[in-house]
Amino acid sequence: MRMSKMLMPTLKEVPSDAEITSHQLMLRAGMIRKMASGVYNQLPMGIRVFNKIQNIIREEMNAKGAQEILCSGLIPSELWKESGRWDVMGPEMFRLKDRNERSYCMGPTHEEVFTDIIRQEVTSYKQLPLNLYQIQVKYRDERRPRFGVMRTKTFTMKDAYSFDVDQEGLDKSYQDMFEAYTNIFARCELENSPVQADSGAMGGSASAEFMVKSEVGEDEIVFCTGCDYAANIEKATSVNHEPSTEEMKEMKEVHTPGVHTIKELVEFFKEDAGKFAKTLIYYADGKTVAVVVRGDRDVNETKVANAIGGAVEFELASESTIKEVTGAEVGFAGPIGIKTDYILIDQEVVDQRNVVIGANKTEYHIENANYGRDFEGTVGDFRNVAEGDKCTKCGSSLEVARGVEVGHIFKLGTKYSESMGATFLDNNGKSQPIVMGCYGIGVERTAAAVIEQHHDENGIIWPLAIAPYHVVVVPVNIKKDEHRENAEKIYEELKAMGVEVLLDDRDERAGVKFKDSELIGIPMRITVGKDIVDGKVEFKLRNSADKEVIGLDEIKSKIESEFEKNNVKLG
Amino acid sequence: MRMSKMLMPTLKEVPSDAEITSHQLMLRAGMIRKMASGVYNQLPMGIRVFNKIQNIIREEMNAKGAQEILCSGLIPSELWKESGRWDVMGPEMFRLKDRNERSYCMGPTHEEVFTDIIRQEVTSYKQLPLNLYQIQVKYRDERRPRFGVMRTKTFTMKDAYSFDVDQEGLDKSYQDMFEAYTNIFARCELENSPVQADSGAMGGSASAEFMVKSEVGEDEIVFCTGCDYAANIEKATSVNHEPSTEEMKEMKEVHTPGVHTIKELVEFFKEDAGKFAKTLIYYADGKTVAVVVRGDRDVNETKVANAIGGAVEFELASESTIKEVTGAEVGFAGPIGIKTDYILIDQEVVDQRNVVIGANKTEYHIENANYGRDFEGTVGDFRNVAEGDKCTKCGSSLEVARGVEVGHIFKLGTKYSESMGATFLDNNGKSQPIVMGCYGIGVERTAAAVIEQHHDENGIIWPLAIAPYHVVVVPVNIKKDEHRENAEKIYEELKAMGVEVLLDDRDERAGVKFKDSELIGIPMRITVGKDIVDGKVEFKLRNSADKEVIGLDEIKSKIESEFEKNNVKLG
Repeated sequence: MRMSKMLMPTLKEVPSDAEITSHQLMLRAGMIRKMASGVYNQLPMGIRVFNKIQNIIREEMNAKGAQEILCSGLIPSELWKESGRWDVMGPEMFRLKDRNERSYCMGPTHEEVFTDIIRQEVTSYKQLPLNLYQIQVKYRDERRPRFGVMRTKTFTMKDAYSFDVDQEGLDKSYQDMFEAYTNIFARCELENSPVQADSGAMGGSASAEFMVKSEVGEDEIVFCTGCDYAANIEKATSVNHEPSTEEMKEMKEVHTPGVHTIKELVEFFKEDAGKFAKTLIYYADGKTVAVVVRGDRDVNETKVANAIGGAVEFELASESTIKEVTGAEVGFAGPIGIKTDYILIDQEVVDQRNVVIGANKTEYHIENANYGRDFEGTVGDFRNVAEGDKCTKCGSSLEVARGVEVGHIFKLGTKYSESMGATFLDNNGKSQPIVMGCYGIGVERTAAAVIEQHHDENGIIWPLAIAPYHVVVVPVNIKKDEHRENAEKIYEELKAMGVEVLLDDRDERAGVKFKDSELIGIPMRITVGKDIVDGKVEFKLRNSADKEVIGLDEIKSKIESEFEKNNVKLG
Repeated sequence: MRMSKMLMPTLKEVPSDAEITSHQLMLRAGMIRKMASGVYNQLPMGIRVFNKIQNIIREEMNAKGAQEILCSGLIPSELWKESGRWDVMGPEMFRLKDRNERSYCMGPTHEEVFTDIIRQEVTSYKQLPLNLYQIQVKYRDERRPRFGVMRTKTFTMKDAYSFDVDQEGLDKSYQDMFEAYTNIFARCELENSPVQADSGAMGGSASAEFMVKSEVGEDEIVFCTGCDYAANIEKATSVNHEPSTEEMKEMKEVHTPGVHTIKELVEFFKEDAGKFAKTLIYYADGKTVAVVVRGDRDVNETKVANAIGGAVEFELASESTIKEVTGAEVGFAGPIGIKTDYILIDQEVVDQRNVVIGANKTEYHIENANYGRDFEGTVGDFRNVAEGDKCTKCGSSLEVARGVEVGHIFKLGTKYSESMGATFLDNNGKSQPIVMGCYGIGVERTAAAVIEQHHDENGIIWPLAIAPYHVVVVPVNIKKDEHRENAEKIYEELKAMGVEVLLDDRDERAGVKFKDSELIGIPMRITVGKDIVDGKVEFKLRNSADKEVIGLDEIKSKIESEFEKNNVKLG
């Protein structure tokens, strides 16, 4: 492509509304433009990258025997009603009606549609396993779109669904997708960690998120410093503190006027936070839940929701609810005598002795309360892992980092096949629900994550496999015949080789051209300047400061060797 | 691909709800499945064809220097309000709101979005011309979805927009697109006629539709039997009848009780239909329009709407409006003394003498009325061409046929650039509106039109360039080692050559396999049967009845020569 003819609106300045590097560089390199909050258009330099990522995904999916299909983005509400999700999906789902008042959504995800396709076509175990995928635009009305294409209302997603006769088949399908995802991200040169993720109350049996460590990530990830354990904070566990061996003391009520927070309690009782147990009250689908964790811990809401079998509406209880179940003002809740539907006690609280808890009485706490003797409840892991906790696998310290999710694989099990009647006849002629998995990758987000990892102060440094173009040929001065003509010749020769090449034929200073090619991140640059009289050009890689003067006859092999080195097929 | 592993749900029976051949065959070949009225999912055999058509489009667009981008399908209403179309677009546009009650549509077309992109990036004539395109899903709430993917609520469209500094530039861009479209349809082996189309009242200066003749088409096309003239009926013109040389007679009112229709008039007056002039009354954006055409003619509503400068609401007037403007019951309207805002007289009526018209008086007509002497109005071409009319270019007979529109190119001019402020500074530093064109192709509809032209009683006969697979290898009996093993070997060898090949490794009778491959329409079939003991296989083309026994060593060259013959690149 001749750059003089191209829509390639690079920006010198950092756009003021772009907070993170990838967003800034995508705008500056002319890859994307915002049309509305969370809604972007993809310009030529952008779509080329996104299409390359899609093709890598396609190749790796096909290599695992997955088959591409394309579902409608417009989905009739009936399917969502069958699965029970029409009323469950919140404001994130865009809903609309046709001229006959029939309801649809713009698909935020496609479990229902794939299940519907399969239940119509599959009747026998002989037709399974199947793995179907699509690469398609998803629509999600994000509450807070931000960070450029990282979190948007519309984005391109590869979503795949596997269909197996049993759990063992699903395990194999899941493993295949694990490998495909590992390959896809490796080919994009995106360092990532597959982390264990929560799979929901009624969800499947396993789930992994492919996470890229990033300060701008919206997820908290727990990594072990000693082994390969990694999990989303929603799912992560840590070793329980040793049970206290202290003798149980006599329980007593203490008047604590104006003392509400753990900090105030610590000061009032002159004990450290580990001596307290706090009780939080949640409202979940019409039920109330009290959760008791150590004073220095955070409640893990995902674990709590799973423990009660899942909840659509799940939030901290209102002041009036708290007053109702505790019989006291807010700030004095405790497990003794509380009138909630559920009482959940974190294991650490069980292991504590003589703790301070709320008395369910305004301005009163109780000292020396002990699980078993003074209060009871469902015991489990209901806390968030904190930095420095110990790994349950190896005992080393855990650390907590932020991450961006670029992929997610998930064992769905039979949730959708049961609710929607997707069954097959097994080899005994018995009807069984199909065992499903689902697997997603965000295309634009992957590109953004690659930029976060591959850039310098001058711009993007694209891995060869997903660069918008492989090579840029820069004539130093387009007005000089020998620069222009030789650049043209090289440009045509490289095109004929199957190299994707830009010719910077703009009437601009060389410095401007170099800056643009570095900003856009083209992996290889060939500069045609004064040495051309000796039949020589300058060859430079974007990811290295070195420049090399090479003969015209060396260009081809230079480029071929870069393709080989990067394991990218040419042409 | 191994057919045993493939989601390829072929159907023996013709689905009862599919009226036309392409719809029946797409369903039977397992290419598509319906999810709701006008909403289809694309299965593996379908998406491969649609993707190939997309790639042909891409190649031909790129060859003309067009650049691919991708716009959001979700479009904020603000852009449509700027162009003035938010209130104009009817129920065909899907509208929706986000969680903040902000309005959007799901793009039925993208003039506004492309104009918005360009006005932000283009400031100078030096940046023009540009041609941008996207291949994207469009959403249109069709009143009556039908004929499979021919008319749906969602479909894939390539839409391109050109941006030029002047009309001359637009003419060149338009011609480029005309050529690109001609190439695209030629590569798909789709016979079509580019026909002149209406370009609207305020629209651009030219417009062509690429029409495929078809009984199921929703458009009426006028073709000349003597020259290359072809036009949409909305636009088509024919030679006016010779002016009558009859003497004008005295006008007189005739009592015509119960006589309303032209047929009744013909009987009553014992004259042929050409002796009458009928007056139809329309309601257009609050104005009334009387249109007078010969009794045997149909009013062309597009021409009428254009003549009054376009109208958003345009329909036959209500009974009460007719009574108001004529002062009579319905059935007696005429041009004399009618109280409409416009009176339009078709040229043929001007050329008639002594015609019968309505008297604007209940149960009365007027005989011997003459334009000029007795009534006046705006004269022009307001009639539909009828079969047998004479061509304005060559005088030969015109014929009227139905057609399916697969592509449309259109000179927009400055409609959008003016309303949305997309301007550039010309070489005199003066601000000018960008001159635009727009160009669309329907992807799935093109595939359907190809099927309408390329099939036989056994199924689809895909042109090699867009076939889902090039070759199917059929072992006659999968249980015989020599059949299976040789088929496998051929399959692997062809794959290595870059041929897209199916291996029919299903445990089915050969007849079933042949039937499926013919239904799906795979261009070449290699059958591994009893001759394999002599190192021979059967080679058959889908588009020919001939079978040929060839040696294993001839397979490669046979296939290569088919690619060459069909001008399709291999690998």
